[in-house]
Amino acid sequence: MPIPENHLVERIARLSRAAAPAARRGQIARIVESIGDDCAVVAASPGEETLITTDLCLEGTHFRREWHPADSVGHRCLTRGLSDIAAMGGVPVAAFLSLALPAKLPQRWVDQLFAGLLHVARAARITLAGGDIAQSPTGIMADITVIGTVEVGRAIRRTGAQAGDAIYVSGELGAPVALLEQMYALPTRKFRAASYPAHFYPKAQLELARFLAARQLPSAMMDISDGLSMDLRRLCQASHVGATIQENAVPVASLNRHEVELRHALHGGDEYQLLFTVPPGRRVPAVHKGTPLTLIGYITDGAEISLEHENGYTTELEPEGWEHFAKGGR
Amino acid sequence: MPIPENHLVERIARLSRAAAPAARRGQIARIVESIGDDCAVVAASPGEETLITTDLCLEGTHFRREWHPADSVGHRCLTRGLSDIAAMGGVPVAAFLSLALPAKLPQRWVDQLFAGLLHVARAARITLAGGDIAQSPTGIMADITVIGTVEVGRAIRRTGAQAGDAIYVSGELGAPVALLEQMYALPTRKFRAASYPAHFYPKAQLELARFLAARQLPSAMMDISDGLSMDLRRLCQASHVGATIQENAVPVASLNRHEVELRHALHGGDEYQLLFTVPPGRRVPAVHKGTPLTLIGYITDGAEISLEHENGYTTELEPEGWEHFAKGGR
Repeated sequence: MPIPENHLVERIARLSRAAAPAARRGQIARIVESIGDDCAVVAASPGEETLITTDLCLEGTHFRREWHPADSVGHRCLTRGLSDIAAMGGVPVAAFLSLALPAKLPQRWVDQLFAGLLHVARAARITLAGGDIAQSPTGIMADITVIGTVEVGRAIRRTGAQAGDAIYVSGELGAPVALLEQMYALPTRKFRAASYPAHFYPKAQLELARFLAARQLPSAMMDISDGLSMDLRRLCQASHVGATIQENAVPVASLNRHEVELRHALHGGDEYQLLFTVPPGRRVPAVHKGTPLTLIGYITDGAEISLEHENGYTTELEPEGWEHFAKGGR
Repeated sequence: MPIPENHLVERIARLSRAAAPAARRGQIARIVESIGDDCAVVAASPGEETLITTDLCLEGTHFRREWHPADSVGHRCLTRGLSDIAAMGGVPVAAFLSLALPAKLPQRWVDQLFAGLLHVARAARITLAGGDIAQSPTGIMADITVIGTVEVGRAIRRTGAQAGDAIYVSGELGAPVALLEQMYALPTRKFRAASYPAHFYPKAQLELARFLAARQLPSAMMDISDGLSMDLRRLCQASHVGATIQENAVPVASLNRHEVELRHALHGGDEYQLLFTVPPGRRVPAVHKGTPLTLIGYITDGAEISLEHENGYTTELEPEGWEHFAKGGR
């Protein structure tokens, strides 16, 4: 499909340029060359390091065409990448999208995917600077690469947590997977995307991450893409520490005006909230621009990750990713 | 699949570290943080710009499991990205691999894919610094992102060709697609991968590109990934020029000791050779470290891309990508 591909690349370049004015106020000066050459060229600034992250969005694994509007797929795809940049305390600069599309996919669907993605790009003041397109023999596949910058030595890694640090999460947890469970339970019901923004149009915590990073509050940070239990374990393993979480401290989200089950908040994932640790004595505000920052427990010596229940008993917090629910395994 | 993914990421991190010693002599000092955090961190050097390229490799579109050994898939995948860095005159630094794998794919296949990819990474002295893994509901999908560097303002773009510039190609053209045509014609025959390195184990022209870039010879450069006729047109469009190519000057490759057909050399693609233009009066060696550099024509005013035949007639060189052949369309 050489000619259609050329046309599609031109179309994307046009869409990307049309979206650029807003970005221009931000980081676009860094992009020296984008769509239309072998590589994109990004200007580095002295004193900065480059952050790079890639994330897959596969039809049937990360979204379903019958559930997710195309603009939600584009929105979620870029948000995944931006959330990784946020989790390092960085500033995003540019995105690259590799797309494999079935031959029969309507052009309108592709346009709406880009509309959703470019809306998020504009809000984050970044440029869609390149990518690749191929015909998929099967479903839709998108791979997003996001490039960001961070001051030298200031990237917030997962490795810095120490015993005694307080553990915080941003926002409230569990709504996206609670909705997903409902979608699996009621496969024919149409869930209006606009009514469930936490799942369909999530927001990467870029601004909050910059606020925390600027104050050098977090000793370690990551996003909760695979669920608190799974991601806290990863953070603890990377830092060679353990943790104790208080069950009744975990901020549980609401869905349709009802609090979701605790297990969704503990194991949910697909959240794009931040999990971070803060050394003793540092003050963390309870709310930042409307987003609650909740103390849920403390880092401990050793490797155990425990959950303190309301009845006083303590059990191990077993890691369970959200894919577990996606397959109806519980 | 949270736990298997964790295991696979650890396995890749281990394979990548094992491959690192050779890379360490090269660019590894730039990689501050790689697999195991939200993002990779790459240190920027003053006076350099960052190059970024992404390329898809899809089962059924870019390779077939019954034709391509897993190590060839990994080899070809990374070579595609490296070739884009070469085409800009850059030095590759790190690669990121997003992989969607069917649940039933044997671990051995995945290991061999990584063996092929890491072999190429070692040779290019780069690090596999991150990526993503997901379960594919259908076939194998790999998306490679390669990061490189180039001195500020020295990236060789497609836009610099001017009327009067000489047009060169590296190597000999047409063998990969001539083989592909045989594979389509004889679908049950087993083609030994090691006997056809131009297709199964192609080499990105990184060293040649650095040689040319260091001498500031090319006014424009790109790799011939979609065939000379298609890619020359892209270069000419980007530079707002035309071109005249001499049919009998095009270096035609051999396959099984027979010269392939001219149409394969003109429209072949899947080549990873360099197409570049050189201003009048600059001397280009006929051979660089065993790779012929062949003058095939000249850049002209206007927009026409012409082919001068041996009989003296001139026709338009129509762009025909190699996918055209892949579908047996001719």
